[in-house]
Amino acid sequence: MNFEEARARFPVFERYAYLNAGTNGPLARATIDAVADYNRRDLERGRGGKAYFEEILALREQAREALAGVLEVPAENVALVSSTTNACNVVLTGLGLTSDDEIITTDIEHFGLLGPLLASPAAVRVAHLRDAPPDEATNLVAEQVTGRTKLIAISHVSWVTGNSLHPFELPRRPDVQILVDGAQTAGVIPTGAGEFDFYTVSGQKWLCGPDSTGALYVRDPERLRVALPTYMSQAAYDVEDSFTPKPGAPRFDSVWHAPGILAGVLAALEAAPEWRYDRTAEIARLCRTRLLDAGYDVVTASEQAGLITFAVDGDAAEAAASLYEAGVIVRDIPDTGWLRVSCGWWTSEGDIERLLAAL
Amino acid sequence: MNFEEARARFPVFERYAYLNAGTNGPLARATIDAVADYNRRDLERGRGGKAYFEEILALREQAREALAGVLEVPAENVALVSSTTNACNVVLTGLGLTSDDEIITTDIEHFGLLGPLLASPAAVRVAHLRDAPPDEATNLVAEQVTGRTKLIAISHVSWVTGNSLHPFELPRRPDVQILVDGAQTAGVIPTGAGEFDFYTVSGQKWLCGPDSTGALYVRDPERLRVALPTYMSQAAYDVEDSFTPKPGAPRFDSVWHAPGILAGVLAALEAAPEWRYDRTAEIARLCRTRLLDAGYDVVTASEQAGLITFAVDGDAAEAAASLYEAGVIVRDIPDTGWLRVSCGWWTSEGDIERLLAAL
Repeated sequence: MNFEEARARFPVFERYAYLNAGTNGPLARATIDAVADYNRRDLERGRGGKAYFEEILALREQAREALAGVLEVPAENVALVSSTTNACNVVLTGLGLTSDDEIITTDIEHFGLLGPLLASPAAVRVAHLRDAPPDEATNLVAEQVTGRTKLIAISHVSWVTGNSLHPFELPRRPDVQILVDGAQTAGVIPTGAGEFDFYTVSGQKWLCGPDSTGALYVRDPERLRVALPTYMSQAAYDVEDSFTPKPGAPRFDSVWHAPGILAGVLAALEAAPEWRYDRTAEIARLCRTRLLDAGYDVVTASEQAGLITFAVDGDAAEAAASLYEAGVIVRDIPDTGWLRVSCGWWTSEGDIERLLAAL
Repeated sequence: MNFEEARARFPVFERYAYLNAGTNGPLARATIDAVADYNRRDLERGRGGKAYFEEILALREQAREALAGVLEVPAENVALVSSTTNACNVVLTGLGLTSDDEIITTDIEHFGLLGPLLASPAAVRVAHLRDAPPDEATNLVAEQVTGRTKLIAISHVSWVTGNSLHPFELPRRPDVQILVDGAQTAGVIPTGAGEFDFYTVSGQKWLCGPDSTGALYVRDPERLRVALPTYMSQAAYDVEDSFTPKPGAPRFDSVWHAPGILAGVLAALEAAPEWRYDRTAEIARLCRTRLLDAGYDVVTASEQAGLITFAVDGDAAEAAASLYEAGVIVRDIPDTGWLRVSCGWWTSEGDIERLLAAL
């Protein structure tokens, strides 16, 4: 499958320079067709009977395997969740931290991670990365570690700056677990999820899946309490006593998806070509270079992931709105004066030129 | 809109005697068309830009209003959740109970409620209703109240027996909050949700909405901690400090729905006729009478909601499977020898006769 064939799967590109996969990815025709096919079956045949549920359970395991494939981890370590936020809440409530504990995070995280951290009784210590050189990230995070640190919770690539936080270089201590928010990596660069205790993924961003999908990698499921159980979490239960979790990470499954949503995830993951990481790196490099050449102050360092953030004169929200009018879809980052461009394996040189022309 | 017109909205009835709304309701053509229309827009125009998000936020408020309408409560007391289970987890984690506290529940609850109770550090006391006369429910629950009771958490109508647990008759104490699982009531009977501290609703059952939808009523949102925050929960946040919840129950919003899902909820709720409660009562009465006349041991008392549970000779799962082969979709209740029939406002006398003929 060559680039033009792969790109042609996404009807949105017939209309827009759609450069917003960091929020929501473009949808392939096959993905929406898969949703529609199963929805029609639900409509005509109903959502009941043993065979119906067996088919959904099989689709769940296929979706789990496919998401595990993207993360390059075993499927038994992957839970199906409704969002990265949902995954972070599963982890933070499961850890059961107390006010004696500390969590380390940074000032360039999404609320999907920050919210669960702030809701935890643990104290949150913040490494200030936004205005620091990107290669200082590891040191600045490590500096915050104390004897009370129980969790380091940071993104792999920041939704704000587009820069990697280099989680692989974090200091490792047996009593400090690491939660990595991979919302801006899965589908963009190899995640290395298996190197961490917890790794979260959004289905609807760079993986181009339906909304309300995602995955949580858990390295040692026995070590995390099932604090938010669902019917899918249990192998058995006794109202007088307790419940027995399923083996592995499926005990953290947090949402019942319609079969169409599961089929949509599968179709989306199947649509990704072998060469996606190389192509994403190439087009992100081009985008960054073209912005620099045009005189923009680019926040994102070279050779990061798919996001390129840069400063604009004047109001960034207004800039995003006028780009939208010109058929170029990007987003602004509130309170920064920055715009953010999402470059995926599907992004063409033409999309980048259209952005530059409209700026 | 007369009965035949209303029923004709659901294609599944052309094929099956679909009697399983207690698990998943029948889907109206308009519901699936609404999902498909918005999915096609997402496909062709992308999922980005200010106008896109403003439209979704407006749809969210419309869905909230519509669900609040079913519950007959103010929309500002309703949160959008992905399931009854999700809603129960929001409540249980938010209450922050300790091992000194007690929760009272019963032996005829769904794991969607029990799981969150069993995951709580509080002790769970169980009222045994399954083999007791249905009108003893209130007394048996009330008997379990002690000075340590902080929460009574029971279903409005049991998914097992089909009987009401008469939550309106529960003793009221200012220090004991009441969580009612309304999965088997919303769309079937008036819920009276506003009488309780918390009331949970499934979107995909009797309301005939898409999967992964639901609502949580919270009488006093300020009294419940936001333990599982999402981006939708906050009005503002400061990474160094904390977040400010939105006013009202939207602070408990737990899932970001695709616009198609929200439009599907709206279409489903609009499809319900004025006469739905009367008709449901009438057809459930007929179903129960016909089963009694045929000599079955019916578990469900007269004049309950839409579920009719009865005992069968032999293996109930096998009975459900052979009914399915005959085009009659019901479910068995594990470990009881019981089958459960779901009678909705859409159920015809013909459906009931088909059930009786196939038994």
